Amino acid sequence: MKAVQVVAFGRAAEVVKLNEVPDVGSPGPDEVVVAVEAAPINNSDFMIIAGRYGYLPPLPATLGIEGVGRVVARGAQVKHLKEGDRTLVPTMHPTWTERVKFKASWQRPLPDNADVRQLSMVGVNPATAYLLLTDFVKVPRDGWVIQNGANSATARAVIAIAKSLGIKTVNVVRREEVVAEVKALGADVVLLDGPDLAKRVAKETGKAPIRLALDVVGGASTLNLMTCLAPHGVVVIYSGMSGQPFTGSPLSVIFNEVSVRGFWLGHWYKTATDDAMATMYGHLVPMVASGAISAPVVGSYGLEGFSEAIAKASAFKGKVIFTPN
Amino acid sequence: MKAVQVVAFGRAAEVVKLNEVPDVGSPGPDEVVVAVEAAPINNSDFMIIAGRYGYLPPLPATLGIEGVGRVVARGAQVKHLKEGDRTLVPTMHPTWTERVKFKASWQRPLPDNADVRQLSMVGVNPATAYLLLTDFVKVPRDGWVIQNGANSATARAVIAIAKSLGIKTVNVVRREEVVAEVKALGADVVLLDGPDLAKRVAKETGKAPIRLALDVVGGASTLNLMTCLAPHGVVVIYSGMSGQPFTGSPLSVIFNEVSVRGFWLGHWYKTATDDAMATMYGHLVPMVASGAISAPVVGSYGLEGFSEAIAKASAFKGKVIFTPN
Repeated sequence: MKAVQVVAFGRAAEVVKLNEVPDVGSPGPDEVVVAVEAAPINNSDFMIIAGRYGYLPPLPATLGIEGVGRVVARGAQVKHLKEGDRTLVPTMHPTWTERVKFKASWQRPLPDNADVRQLSMVGVNPATAYLLLTDFVKVPRDGWVIQNGANSATARAVIAIAKSLGIKTVNVVRREEVVAEVKALGADVVLLDGPDLAKRVAKETGKAPIRLALDVVGGASTLNLMTCLAPHGVVVIYSGMSGQPFTGSPLSVIFNEVSVRGFWLGHWYKTATDDAMATMYGHLVPMVASGAISAPVVGSYGLEGFSEAIAKASAFKGKVIFTPN
Repeated sequence: MKAVQVVAFGRAAEVVKLNEVPDVGSPGPDEVVVAVEAAPINNSDFMIIAGRYGYLPPLPATLGIEGVGRVVARGAQVKHLKEGDRTLVPTMHPTWTERVKFKASWQRPLPDNADVRQLSMVGVNPATAYLLLTDFVKVPRDGWVIQNGANSATARAVIAIAKSLGIKTVNVVRREEVVAEVKALGADVVLLDGPDLAKRVAKETGKAPIRLALDVVGGASTLNLMTCLAPHGVVVIYSGMSGQPFTGSPLSVIFNEVSVRGFWLGHWYKTATDDAMATMYGHLVPMVASGAISAPVVGSYGLEGFSEAIAKASAFKGKVIFTPN
């Protein structure tokens, strides 16, 4: 079977190849074999290709870290999936290939009438958004969270998931042009970033205490978020899109006991229980199926179209999906 | 009686006065009255005078946040102190005055043969150093801690206390001239700050994992410390001497799960139990009495010399002590 692989770390045009790889073979007693229907290109794929990610696989390595497909074979002990069922592939499992094999545990059949391309993206951006909102600070209903980079894929999911949890969002963007778009997603407040952010946030929220800030940008934007936080607030950094070191206020951390933490989905999946997985996907899958969580898709490609697919995705205008079967 | 007070927030030369204030009166049943022997000028006094501190007292307010004195009267229920005993004044209790009155709980008599000026400083810098080393990360014996601003008063105490706990220190300084001085304090490693710090630290420590970094500087120095930390390391910020926002590495917090926290002694004292106080002072007082913890003193003044005392202290060449009795 075929797989899109990285054969050395470097420039995608030179190091990504479509290779013939051994078939996955028959499932073990607790395993399923799945024919991949859809698997997106994520930022982390680009970082792995470039050799600049939190973990780097031994080479050559099949790319892709999430996806969805149909069960084509199952082991005798597998109870919750049968042949023909659509299922999620475990996140961090390589998916830019025709068939994958994995141990089925928390997986359940997915709705057949949902957009399979949207479903294929539930395990990274929406999962990150869900965990950012639920794993660090217990935000009460009608409480507030603040985030920057508010038109990114994960931030869009934050807006939708926050709404589903009864949490209000302050959304910080860097360009005036995207304000209307982010408002249309259901954002409660959308503001341009800047050093006077705290003052404008206080005005928009009626000085409501905010204890959770989600930072995808870094640089001065982290400091701006931090100054909006109430005592004991937490800034959670989950990417650094600006490429700059993040900055922070000594006064906030010393006198307001604000802290800075990081979040990487890779760490979470390594230790997550089946129950935690089931709870999370139980919340997210219906939201994706209903369209409440949605990411703009700009193209779908078979594996043989990998070169064009990667070039398209690297323009960051929207998501590109592989559809191997 | 007399007290050195701040009457408005602003420039010390204009807003600090020697005022006549009412005497403290007789002790309540669980209180003692103490004649102040020694009380230092701390950085926080300057910050309070300028109106830029974590808490600001109603004005006019007697200054000073720590000190030592002799019990001159005690309430009937006070068991552990008697008249004539030397005792610590509770930290954060104003001390630039002749007599203070407070509830005696964890206090015990202090050694008579110790340097009273050094004893008067145990509650702020050595206490901060002790809590920075013990309250955030459990550093094992022979484990390492890294700190910057290593020739500051608190950092000097960190070196001594770390040694008493069997912990080794990497000490980062900004000027070559102070390297020998910090080494002479018992520092295991002393290095100049810089963006390549992590590499030089790894060489000096044999790549030992470091999970605690103490930051008094801010700016780029925080980032430099952070990049020296092992997974799950904590950067504790307890001042921002550079006046710059601190900076940090998104990669460290996301992939290495390094976090940033703040420490302010004021918060700690508000919630500390008598047991925690007794344990801490039980560790620190003998170290001060023996000279293992020591801060350079550049002058002692009666309260009437307040103007000169404050001018001298504001040169930051060493500690200045009030000796009201």
